[in-house]
Amino acid sequence: MSSRIEVLYRVRSDAKSIAARAKGIAVEQSVEMPVEPIDDPYVLRETLGRVDDIKDMGDGTFEVRIGLASITTGMAAGQTLNMIFGNTSMQDDTVLVDAVFPPEFAEAFGGPRHGLDGLRARVNAPRRALTCSALKPQGSTPAALAKLAGQIAAGGIDYLKDDHGLADQTYSPFAERVPACAEAVAKAAARTGLPTRYLPSLCGNLDSMRRQIALARSCGLDTVLIAPLIAGVDTFQTMVKENPDFAFMTHPTMAGASRIMPSFLLGKFVRLLGSDATVFANYGGRFGYTPEECKRVSGFALQDWSGVKPCVPVPAGGMVLERVQEMLDFFGPDVMLLIGGSLLSTRERITAETARYVDAVRNYRAGQPS
Amino acid sequence: MSSRIEVLYRVRSDAKSIAARAKGIAVEQSVEMPVEPIDDPYVLRETLGRVDDIKDMGDGTFEVRIGLASITTGMAAGQTLNMIFGNTSMQDDTVLVDAVFPPEFAEAFGGPRHGLDGLRARVNAPRRALTCSALKPQGSTPAALAKLAGQIAAGGIDYLKDDHGLADQTYSPFAERVPACAEAVAKAAARTGLPTRYLPSLCGNLDSMRRQIALARSCGLDTVLIAPLIAGVDTFQTMVKENPDFAFMTHPTMAGASRIMPSFLLGKFVRLLGSDATVFANYGGRFGYTPEECKRVSGFALQDWSGVKPCVPVPAGGMVLERVQEMLDFFGPDVMLLIGGSLLSTRERITAETARYVDAVRNYRAGQPS
Repeated sequence: MSSRIEVLYRVRSDAKSIAARAKGIAVEQSVEMPVEPIDDPYVLRETLGRVDDIKDMGDGTFEVRIGLASITTGMAAGQTLNMIFGNTSMQDDTVLVDAVFPPEFAEAFGGPRHGLDGLRARVNAPRRALTCSALKPQGSTPAALAKLAGQIAAGGIDYLKDDHGLADQTYSPFAERVPACAEAVAKAAARTGLPTRYLPSLCGNLDSMRRQIALARSCGLDTVLIAPLIAGVDTFQTMVKENPDFAFMTHPTMAGASRIMPSFLLGKFVRLLGSDATVFANYGGRFGYTPEECKRVSGFALQDWSGVKPCVPVPAGGMVLERVQEMLDFFGPDVMLLIGGSLLSTRERITAETARYVDAVRNYRAGQPS
Repeated sequence: MSSRIEVLYRVRSDAKSIAARAKGIAVEQSVEMPVEPIDDPYVLRETLGRVDDIKDMGDGTFEVRIGLASITTGMAAGQTLNMIFGNTSMQDDTVLVDAVFPPEFAEAFGGPRHGLDGLRARVNAPRRALTCSALKPQGSTPAALAKLAGQIAAGGIDYLKDDHGLADQTYSPFAERVPACAEAVAKAAARTGLPTRYLPSLCGNLDSMRRQIALARSCGLDTVLIAPLIAGVDTFQTMVKENPDFAFMTHPTMAGASRIMPSFLLGKFVRLLGSDATVFANYGGRFGYTPEECKRVSGFALQDWSGVKPCVPVPAGGMVLERVQEMLDFFGPDVMLLIGGSLLSTRERITAETARYVDAVRNYRAGQPS
């Protein structure tokens, strides 16, 4: 029999209904029709979903493990998402917790092309945690954003990304903003002697993203931001495959929070598709993720996976300089910290404040009082 | 001041926190940084989100109306989704209920190119409800699906779509399946004298969808199925704009159920982007939608909208022939019924059973006992 993806769902159910409910998910996510009239032995043996395990969690929910035939995904990103969660995303009683992919998925999708080691090498930081900030607010002109980019780069930041809301708007067209910011960062980097990277945010359809990454390359850039849930995961995979020289940071916008566990979606799945660095909402910020789930995102992004490089976890969302010590104690050194808005709030002191942030990360020692 | 999208969120909160929480959403979905340090008057006046109304619903939730600047969307589909829900999708306390778009969105996105009248005209059914079924199960060969397509078409169905799980798998490549099914349906239609339409399901990235729709056109087809939440809404919009001769039925896979109201996402938003017929999970089937929400989906798909044609509501998901009378009583004649699996369960009687389904819709009279 051909290989299966082992998909783990958490289902709210009573004990007497769970067997039928589990079978319902296995059917929904495969043949999507009553099984009884199916007489094709290939379908029954190879493509019909299979309930492999049901575990009573004792809290009114069950963990249901279902084997879905790899072959039904066509080894395409969107169809994989369609098969592991598609219609079941519309069931209020079910959460997608995790999926274990057979080895051919790593081969087909390839994972991060650069990953943790690649992103460290780009900025000559072989061991320490990496630093990142964001260009905001939208509505600013390319000149204003370029000025800000230069000020932050002058503070010695490793990575500086567009806010994911910076797209291709009339007040800041991609084709004007990106060369302006790239130039400002390059000038500042020449002065600091540090290889700060600027990441434009790709937007629109595959055609426009291809034009955008070509423009980014022509500006000397080698790292970009993309939002896979907005772009579509097939668009994301295509960009990764076509641009092996580029590293991709992924943004979690539209990832939701309650139906797919962030650890799977943002830790494992975007990594499989080629995310080199995965932004996720850290605990204690503007979003409701728990420390445990954030640790799982980080764990999934970094864990050993044959043929798939580690992806850098990027906790974000309302982070502040005062939390650097705590965050590094929590996540360890294999992390990129993203502090955006609170840094921008320091206005004319932004270069000095960035330098303070960069120093805090560089000089971090585990377990010191903050 | 430039135009605003009026976005309606339902927020779980206590009375003393709601003003701050509402402002938080307005900031998150626009400038995404603390407002205090922003000194650009254009940003403060034009792009910063604005809380327009807060209404206590008396059940521990509030309806919060927020004005988001149209200009921040760049009039692109993905960026519109990013702005109206992106990061807030990660908040467990907030549901996107609705959005009212200024007139320039209808002009930019165009809505359905064919819509209700166009889909009726395709099958010479100027007034009655339309019928639809689906080819399943995945794992079947192109020959088996083509045989089934011929049998269902022989029963006189209006529209026959690929299951949304039929993609481009080794056991049924798109390039083999679609010509085989198109030919089988054309032959059956020649015998019945009815213009039954076969809808292949587009999959993969923009490149592959362009190849697929070109193949579909070369097979004489003019209607397709697409899943906007898998494809990415920009990919969907691009396909609609590039293929004005084609009608697009949209599938709700990955649409979730609990964070964006289906009435907005599946009734209004996919319509704005060009869905001619929107499939959604009907009440009383395999999914947990309420009759009220299904009525709202249908209402949003059909309601008057200057410059945007009506989109055909397609209730589906475990529907059976015995519910035709009830569904038509409930939805009225401006609807397409989709009965898939239960029809396929009749095996060798499928042509006769399809004819019975088609007759039930054709002979429907309001309010008769079923």
